[in-house]
Amino acid sequence: MVQALIDKAEVLVEALPYIRRFRDKTVVIKYGGAAMTDDELRASFAVDVVLLKYIGVQPVLVHGGGPQIGATLERLEIPTRFEQGLRVTDDATMEVVEMVLGGRVNREIVALIGRGGGKAIGLTGSDAGLLRVRRKRQDGADLGRVGEVVAVDPEPIRAVAEAGYVPVIAPIGADDEGLTYNVNADEAAGAIAEALHAEKLILLTDVEGVLDAQGQLIHRLTEADVEKLIGEGTIQGGMIPKVECCLRALRGGVGRSHVIDGRVLHAILLEVFTDGGVGTLLTR
Amino acid sequence: MVQALIDKAEVLVEALPYIRRFRDKTVVIKYGGAAMTDDELRASFAVDVVLLKYIGVQPVLVHGGGPQIGATLERLEIPTRFEQGLRVTDDATMEVVEMVLGGRVNREIVALIGRGGGKAIGLTGSDAGLLRVRRKRQDGADLGRVGEVVAVDPEPIRAVAEAGYVPVIAPIGADDEGLTYNVNADEAAGAIAEALHAEKLILLTDVEGVLDAQGQLIHRLTEADVEKLIGEGTIQGGMIPKVECCLRALRGGVGRSHVIDGRVLHAILLEVFTDGGVGTLLTR
Amino acid sequence: MVQALIDKAEVLVEALPYIRRFRDKTVVIKYGGAAMTDDELRASFAVDVVLLKYIGVQPVLVHGGGPQIGATLERLEIPTRFEQGLRVTDDATMEVVEMVLGGRVNREIVALIGRGGGKAIGLTGSDAGLLRVRRKRQDGADLGRVGEVVAVDPEPIRAVAEAGYVPVIAPIGADDEGLTYNVNADEAAGAIAEALHAEKLILLTDVEGVLDAQGQLIHRLTEADVEKLIGEGTIQGGMIPKVECCLRALRGGVGRSHVIDGRVLHAILLEVFTDGGVGTLLTR
Amino acid sequence: MVQALIDKAEVLVEALPYIRRFRDKTVVIKYGGAAMTDDELRASFAVDVVLLKYIGVQPVLVHGGGPQIGATLERLEIPTRFEQGLRVTDDATMEVVEMVLGGRVNREIVALIGRGGGKAIGLTGSDAGLLRVRRKRQDGADLGRVGEVVAVDPEPIRAVAEAGYVPVIAPIGADDEGLTYNVNADEAAGAIAEALHAEKLILLTDVEGVLDAQGQLIHRLTEADVEKLIGEGTIQGGMIPKVECCLRALRGGVGRSHVIDGRVLHAILLEVFTDGGVGTLLTR
Amino acid sequence: MVQALIDKAEVLVEALPYIRRFRDKTVVIKYGGAAMTDDELRASFAVDVVLLKYIGVQPVLVHGGGPQIGATLERLEIPTRFEQGLRVTDDATMEVVEMVLGGRVNREIVALIGRGGGKAIGLTGSDAGLLRVRRKRQDGADLGRVGEVVAVDPEPIRAVAEAGYVPVIAPIGADDEGLTYNVNADEAAGAIAEALHAEKLILLTDVEGVLDAQGQLIHRLTEADVEKLIGEGTIQGGMIPKVECCLRALRGGVGRSHVIDGRVLHAILLEVFTDGGVGTLLTR
Amino acid sequence: MVQALIDKAEVLVEALPYIRRFRDKTVVIKYGGAAMTDDELRASFAVDVVLLKYIGVQPVLVHGGGPQIGATLERLEIPTRFEQGLRVTDDATMEVVEMVLGGRVNREIVALIGRGGGKAIGLTGSDAGLLRVRRKRQDGADLGRVGEVVAVDPEPIRAVAEAGYVPVIAPIGADDEGLTYNVNADEAAGAIAEALHAEKLILLTDVEGVLDAQGQLIHRLTEADVEKLIGEGTIQGGMIPKVECCLRALRGGVGRSHVIDGRVLHAILLEVFTDGGVGTLLTR
Repeated sequence: MVQALIDKAEVLVEALPYIRRFRDKTVVIKYGGAAMTDDELRASFAVDVVLLKYIGVQPVLVHGGGPQIGATLERLEIPTRFEQGLRVTDDATMEVVEMVLGGRVNREIVALIGRGGGKAIGLTGSDAGLLRVRRKRQDGADLGRVGEVVAVDPEPIRAVAEAGYVPVIAPIGADDEGLTYNVNADEAAGAIAEALHAEKLILLTDVEGVLDAQGQLIHRLTEADVEKLIGEGTIQGGMIPKVECCLRALRGGVGRSHVIDGRVLHAILLEVFTDGGVGTLLTR
Repeated sequence: MVQALIDKAEVLVEALPYIRRFRDKTVVIKYGGAAMTDDELRASFAVDVVLLKYIGVQPVLVHGGGPQIGATLERLEIPTRFEQGLRVTDDATMEVVEMVLGGRVNREIVALIGRGGGKAIGLTGSDAGLLRVRRKRQDGADLGRVGEVVAVDPEPIRAVAEAGYVPVIAPIGADDEGLTYNVNADEAAGAIAEALHAEKLILLTDVEGVLDAQGQLIHRLTEADVEKLIGEGTIQGGMIPKVECCLRALRGGVGRSHVIDGRVLHAILLEVFTDGGVGTLLTR
Repeated sequence: MVQALIDKAEVLVEALPYIRRFRDKTVVIKYGGAAMTDDELRASFAVDVVLLKYIGVQPVLVHGGGPQIGATLERLEIPTRFEQGLRVTDDATMEVVEMVLGGRVNREIVALIGRGGGKAIGLTGSDAGLLRVRRKRQDGADLGRVGEVVAVDPEPIRAVAEAGYVPVIAPIGADDEGLTYNVNADEAAGAIAEALHAEKLILLTDVEGVLDAQGQLIHRLTEADVEKLIGEGTIQGGMIPKVECCLRALRGGVGRSHVIDGRVLHAILLEVFTDGGVGTLLTR
Repeated sequence: MVQALIDKAEVLVEALPYIRRFRDKTVVIKYGGAAMTDDELRASFAVDVVLLKYIGVQPVLVHGGGPQIGATLERLEIPTRFEQGLRVTDDATMEVVEMVLGGRVNREIVALIGRGGGKAIGLTGSDAGLLRVRRKRQDGADLGRVGEVVAVDPEPIRAVAEAGYVPVIAPIGADDEGLTYNVNADEAAGAIAEALHAEKLILLTDVEGVLDAQGQLIHRLTEADVEKLIGEGTIQGGMIPKVECCLRALRGGVGRSHVIDGRVLHAILLEVFTDGGVGTLLTR
Repeated sequence: MVQALIDKAEVLVEALPYIRRFRDKTVVIKYGGAAMTDDELRASFAVDVVLLKYIGVQPVLVHGGGPQIGATLERLEIPTRFEQGLRVTDDATMEVVEMVLGGRVNREIVALIGRGGGKAIGLTGSDAGLLRVRRKRQDGADLGRVGEVVAVDPEPIRAVAEAGYVPVIAPIGADDEGLTYNVNADEAAGAIAEALHAEKLILLTDVEGVLDAQGQLIHRLTEADVEKLIGEGTIQGGMIPKVECCLRALRGGVGRSHVIDGRVLHAILLEVFTDGGVGTLLTR
Repeated sequence: MVQALIDKAEVLVEALPYIRRFRDKTVVIKYGGAAMTDDELRASFAVDVVLLKYIGVQPVLVHGGGPQIGATLERLEIPTRFEQGLRVTDDATMEVVEMVLGGRVNREIVALIGRGGGKAIGLTGSDAGLLRVRRKRQDGADLGRVGEVVAVDPEPIRAVAEAGYVPVIAPIGADDEGLTYNVNADEAAGAIAEALHAEKLILLTDVEGVLDAQGQLIHRLTEADVEKLIGEGTIQGGMIPKVECCLRALRGGVGRSHVIDGRVLHAILLEVFTDGGVGTLLTR
């Protein structure tokens, strides 16, 4: 039995260099997918975040909520349609987006962190001018109240984090007139990581990471690699905006970006506390 | 024209003793009623709050949202019923309460303060253990997820206020298991005022204040007066919980409680910056 | 009656953008003329200054005292004469200047602020090396102990202002040997505004402001305008050193300089809290 | 030559225990008499004060100015008379008192400290409510504007001292209406020492100290001794108010009071840095 | 492989409640025995200490060095003898004690922590009056320069710990004359834990812990238990002073005392991060 | 007698400009020679250091210990030999060096400062990575564990000094593997002075200072002078490394370097508090 204890202590000891490296550093995590719906994964995510906070790392969470929005729209019989992968958002839809993201999903994550032993404060990008956006124009299409980030004010996030809380941010921004917009959660997470000079941006996904042409996980990618793989069609579909968001953050000064597999228990801890990690690391 | 300007300056000068008295003091305001629905009143409320913040007072807003909740329940065809003036709240209803209060009403107030020139951060009583509640038992009736306040942690509110933001709080609490409950906004405001050692608790209502048997406004009431007036039936109906909430706050150390007329433009400023005010003052 | 109150509240609300703009900013005011002799104007000046202090502006007062010096010299039968508008100051005269400015006028202003509800501390330019001067040579004339400012040490003024007091400064400077000199109050105010990186320099005068050839008030002047008006003889006499002092301050980094009419009640508040103001604004 | 240097070093070394004992302690000095009129004594006083400031003691000076006031009254042909050792002070006299104390004597001491290498700021008891007084009634006599100290606000003195300056205080107080009064400088010094919780109160006089019946200096006196000596008539005349002022300060919490001989060069340093000192020590 | 990683993450997660409990708490560790001589144990001890420091615990080390002192005395042919388990310490012996403890053992521990990735500063009880002692009199025997602790000044230890270093303390004290004494390391550790209001005192030994009459480890003991076991003779020999030292610390306000088995790898981590620990816990 | 006191006061007054100049400045002193062995000189050195600390100077001591090391080596019958003036240091010798410097000499100096009324903390260059060194290679000779300084971390020294203690540093450094080396004390003092941006580096020696060809003390030398005097052979032997160490410190930003006569009582005070000093001043 003592040997089992010693083995456990060795694990703590192995974590030491990582604790040292990330102390007082900010890690922005885009939370979503299975890690947000599966109960066991949810619980393991919560303790990961709380553990980071306790050993001196500053985790900041940004979440989406597409499925929950879809379900509520359906229930309210509000028709919805997508253009180029983005939900066309009229005023009725936006009202639902705000209620679901800010009033339900955000709340559930705050409660989840609380059950994990931490203290979280929910923020919305429209709090205190946190996320300033403008109407997104994509290839001429009018997507309605879909916004793209113009500026991030990191002060409200810092105030909350430095007071000892985990900031949990719903990706709704406001334009100069105060009109609110739906923002893609990956994009919001990237912009927030940049504004906070984060050490790491982690995108939790429901895939293993970026895969090569043979379907094998690629452990590490540079900017040039990414461009080549997109050109060849190896990276395609929904993974393209994710890796582009990672690259944008890197160019903006974020140390490292990661696309990781949120279906793995303790994916966040594994990412922060091991060398290999459980997904794809992107660097400049 | 110069005379008009001088008259204006005199008004500022008259405000000086009040500025001096309330500097660095906390004022908790229960926001609701016409002041939350009428556009002109909304705008005047916002500038009042922002002005207070600028001259060094710390305003903290607590809001309700009954009408908005009712409308959404209706739209979702979720039946609702009241017992003893309180909405019986099953799980489906609670989900709507959270979405409407936290995702819509709270957001609108944050945006309103922003348009008034201030910076607000929306909080929910379930953030960071802010509002700890238990299931309310009232005369044996089971009201479902209706909570009564057990404890308030003032730290998250202070962190937000001291960082320069106006805290806007949705009255949803959580019990020890993290289950959320609907809390009466007046009650939440009173408990928060107590925990913050507020100088003032102001309840914005849609009546002139507390009225006497002849329907005339009573400007000032003591604890003993209130008991007598309730006994005589002069104070009745929905006014009873309001004055009781005021008295509880006074006993808990709040300096002064006010029931004021939110239908008057700049009701908050008038309350803070004049001697008479525009409603009923309750003191011990 | 409620309408009257609402009108008052509107005035406070109008002041909000100005409060926001000048918060934590320093405003240097040269105090003199009717505002210093007429009882009603004196009282209105005091509350203006105290109000500024309370809403977070840092007022710094610099005063003259020519008439009071003249009266005392007369009473002591010390003959006096002027050259080029400046009092020739021998040692006997200087002794009177110091007693009257530092021992009487300065004290009266400190007491005036006290009666207005504020707390002032009187300083003399010779305190702690605040105002370092040298003997003024003007067109070869020897004016005796009349000094021109060589350097201002802003630290004593800041120490007093940051401790919550209104600094009231008598314009007496000292040279490197510690010999004291009479300094023109406008000039002292300008140099102090520059050293404090003040937002505003306000010269209180007994005229409406700078007038054009038709005797009409000019609301706004640039550096170029001033030079042209002096060249044309429109600005003449005692107004020339005043506008030159304003321009020097602007070149030294002060945001705005004003020549205003001290005979108007609440002239300072009107200047700070309205767009038009009550005199002439000088900008670069 | 080296031996002479070593002897000098020994003197510094001897001072060490005193430096240690008085570091960060406040020493209030009533400055007056020969030390204020003789040029060599003035210079030695200044360096003493500056040295104290540099080694971490906080000196606070309170000065009188009777002779200078008398001379100016005479020059202005204002008749003056004394009752019970106190100058009857009508309004005309008070005006002169303020001008001479605040405008001349105070200024000269500030300049003196400056020449000694220090930085002083002159204060008057009427600055910022520093010295609150009421009209003195002594045995029914009406002495006019002679005040007795009611309260001392130590904050303005501390603000000045902690910012690195030597506070030099003219003993003029103000009553609740802001009317100014002449205060005895010993009394003012005692009250200020009490309010500042000073370690020492030093009264500089023109005698050796308190003398016994044989005219010999008494080195140390307790409260009981003083009462006995006054009873016997050994302590008499102007020394009585001085020792009473010392006793009052001791009862108010000041550590030690001293009546010392200001006619001795470096009397202050000798008092602070030697065991015997150069006058009489009073303790409880 | 991913499963192995997940298992590791679980270990980190298990540590969370302990991290939370001991954050910012001080843990005083008496270091000695096998943990100080065996290379593998030394290395595991070092990382344990460094890990504690990194996760926000404040470890303070106190070490002995009996064997190293004995070896050096032998080499220098200085005869030595023991009385009642304590080395009789003449001046020649004390000189060796100081050199060996302060110049060798202390240095080696500082270097050990350095190799473990931390930063340590070696202190001796005679630094800055840290450990004030007097000559120990035990049953009339004169043990020479063996001291017992009279007072601990925690300030030098705090200064070092708060600047980010691990204090490593050699148990040599000084009396009021500055004469140094050898102090028992357990006793020094106990007194230091008390002065620092430590959360835990841990004595590393070369036995399993306190054993019962059957030679089985006792996991938990109260003060009463200890007295009973000593009375029965179950606790005997060198264990008696150790448990008495633990009890003294508990009475002095230390939260918990532990006698643990330093022969186990990562004994410190196991003690702090598991419920059972690896030795005997003593509580009041 | 009073005159004698006044003379003493004058000495304090003379010290004032020096107190002013060195306040809050760091002075690094290489302590050794007669000042470390003669009892009277030791005591005078201690009070000098304590006096500096009290008047606001930050003294930092670096000591050698060659004679004590030699004596212990002899006693332990460890043979020793010198090459190019440096002790060849094998592992057995290094063990003695550490014990003697860190465990005895350093301790004695800490105790000495304590007896002088100050509080010292002993540090070794191997504490907290303070003195990082590498093996010294001098003209191909292998001197064993003799190190040359690669880097100094000033933080541990600052932490100790700012907490109110006098840092006393033994010149033992460690390389990147943590292996310790003997470092020349002059060299260590110079490197430490540079890292601390010291105002002064003072080398205490057993000669008058640098002498000219006629054996007369040279009071002041520039870099060019030194090079010339070495070239001419006027500066020779052990003085060469001392002056080179001084020059290196000057080039590294230290204000002034001094080679002074430690055989003079209060040599440090004389150096800091007189213009001439008692040795040779080196400047760039």
